[in-house]
Amino acid sequence: MSSIISVLSVNHLLPELEKVLPDKKFHNVENAETDKIFRESEIIIADNNLIALYLYDLPNIKWIQGTWAGVERIMKVVRPGDPPKYPISRFTGKHFGVLMSEYVISQIISYERCAFEMRENQKLKKWIKYEKLRQYRSFPELTIGVLGVGNIGNRVAKTLNLMGAKILGYGRQQNFDLEQNKHISNYFTKSNLPQMLQNCDYLVNILPSTPETEGLLNGEILENCKSKGTVFINVGRGSIISEESLVTALKSKWISGAILDVLEKEPLPSSSALWELPNVVITPHVSAVSRNQDVAEQFKENLTYYEQKLPIPATINFFAGY
Amino acid sequence: MSSIISVLSVNHLLPELEKVLPDKKFHNVENAETDKIFRESEIIIADNNLIALYLYDLPNIKWIQGTWAGVERIMKVVRPGDPPKYPISRFTGKHFGVLMSEYVISQIISYERCAFEMRENQKLKKWIKYEKLRQYRSFPELTIGVLGVGNIGNRVAKTLNLMGAKILGYGRQQNFDLEQNKHISNYFTKSNLPQMLQNCDYLVNILPSTPETEGLLNGEILENCKSKGTVFINVGRGSIISEESLVTALKSKWISGAILDVLEKEPLPSSSALWELPNVVITPHVSAVSRNQDVAEQFKENLTYYEQKLPIPATINFFAGY
Repeated sequence: MSSIISVLSVNHLLPELEKVLPDKKFHNVENAETDKIFRESEIIIADNNLIALYLYDLPNIKWIQGTWAGVERIMKVVRPGDPPKYPISRFTGKHFGVLMSEYVISQIISYERCAFEMRENQKLKKWIKYEKLRQYRSFPELTIGVLGVGNIGNRVAKTLNLMGAKILGYGRQQNFDLEQNKHISNYFTKSNLPQMLQNCDYLVNILPSTPETEGLLNGEILENCKSKGTVFINVGRGSIISEESLVTALKSKWISGAILDVLEKEPLPSSSALWELPNVVITPHVSAVSRNQDVAEQFKENLTYYEQKLPIPATINFFAGY
Repeated sequence: MSSIISVLSVNHLLPELEKVLPDKKFHNVENAETDKIFRESEIIIADNNLIALYLYDLPNIKWIQGTWAGVERIMKVVRPGDPPKYPISRFTGKHFGVLMSEYVISQIISYERCAFEMRENQKLKKWIKYEKLRQYRSFPELTIGVLGVGNIGNRVAKTLNLMGAKILGYGRQQNFDLEQNKHISNYFTKSNLPQMLQNCDYLVNILPSTPETEGLLNGEILENCKSKGTVFINVGRGSIISEESLVTALKSKWISGAILDVLEKEPLPSSSALWELPNVVITPHVSAVSRNQDVAEQFKENLTYYEQKLPIPATINFFAGY
């Protein structure tokens, strides 16, 4: 047994943990296979994929704090009928809404103002100020559809509205309260989604992957975007539209561009047509990330629950699978 | 004499003018030298540099609406003792604050998240997610110094604060009212500017060019930024720092980067070292622009004054020179 807290992560978590909890002892695990301190730990902070291998191999473990929000990798190794007898808490990412808002705002402004074209001009040492760089739109002229106005999506919607954009919201709930959500002008559900698509300059997907959202934008539904020349931004999950449907929508000019942080297949294979299509921006699933300081902060918070023998928030329900 | 309103501009103003004033007749001037309608106009909308040539050559002119904010080009041709006998109104750019806020926000997020590096990876069809792309800062962690908290600067400061940043303000006034400007945490003037510089993650210049601001950042004052590794953003005027001082500050690593929309010499000559220095972003003076729709809107507003024979707002004072 050991009061040392083991840390198993590809990120450099240690400095942040030592900053927020200077009185605790942390141990960075280099080689999990041979590390004795790690194996005998009572508390471990770990990347979900790395700890998955050891769930049944930690005799003294009392609590694992994960560094990811997604638990698929852990659930894959949980034995049905014999789940771990200790809690594993998810990283819930309470900063995700802020980080995603920043991503979306920055991508929209960069897109409107041809940021990458200006960059290419800089490389050529050329001061070029053609009309396209001067007649850009700004948020007060944009209508932005937000698919998914739950916790994170609503935060993104609010921030876009603070910048001046008109917001159309989409969700599952039939009785969404517009009075309580004044930053959203109109609310849509699956039955009138086409009408929403006909009115968006930008369409931002923040929906999670569920049976209801998988393939929601497949087929010809994006043809509704044609008159507006909507730009599609995906920061939710790639499963909302197949790569095939997305390529069709772009090539048919139903949508005029796409900014994609999540994709049907990740990492996006080098064979994908999306890499090179005009007006397509690809980023490697980084619109919101588990930053070291945020993980450290959440661990510190959860530690107070642990030390008071209170239930730790956001632990995995091994039976429900999330 | 003619009731047709002439339009002399390199931009495509006509569609926007016709949109906001469908009952008026506009005439697009292709060749000012030979255009009779133009020469006989009572009202002209014109780019300040283009109209400057004709100020004394318009027998029927009653009002000129400029499309620029700056009047240097016009003042160069105004004859001392014999100024034009009709009003010339400046484009005042009431959208400039919004547009500049968007520019600054987008540049900061792009800088923090290595947007151009991700773009290069996309060109190589590479999904690369190294730590630098995942440990970025977001606005709530940033302290941003804003040089110039007048009309436009204060709007930028407000928007950056809405995004979560802590704002340090700088101005000429000794008795700036922090109670009335809660989005600004601390206020500085010339005497304690070094102290401000020591505390900024970003330093945004929005000061106009005046004898007081010219060269304000010349010499070694930016050495104060060294501990924070401040990134300097210039959307005000290039005259605040000489190119030589700026290159020194970058090469000496007093500042860790620079995002420059305005420069000492514009267009920036291809011989300038700035084009290629690492962590330097150059854009061709486009952070806020006279967009066609904004010019049209201001013309429409001013026209109501003109038609009621009321003084038109923001006309040039030929004696004061602005």
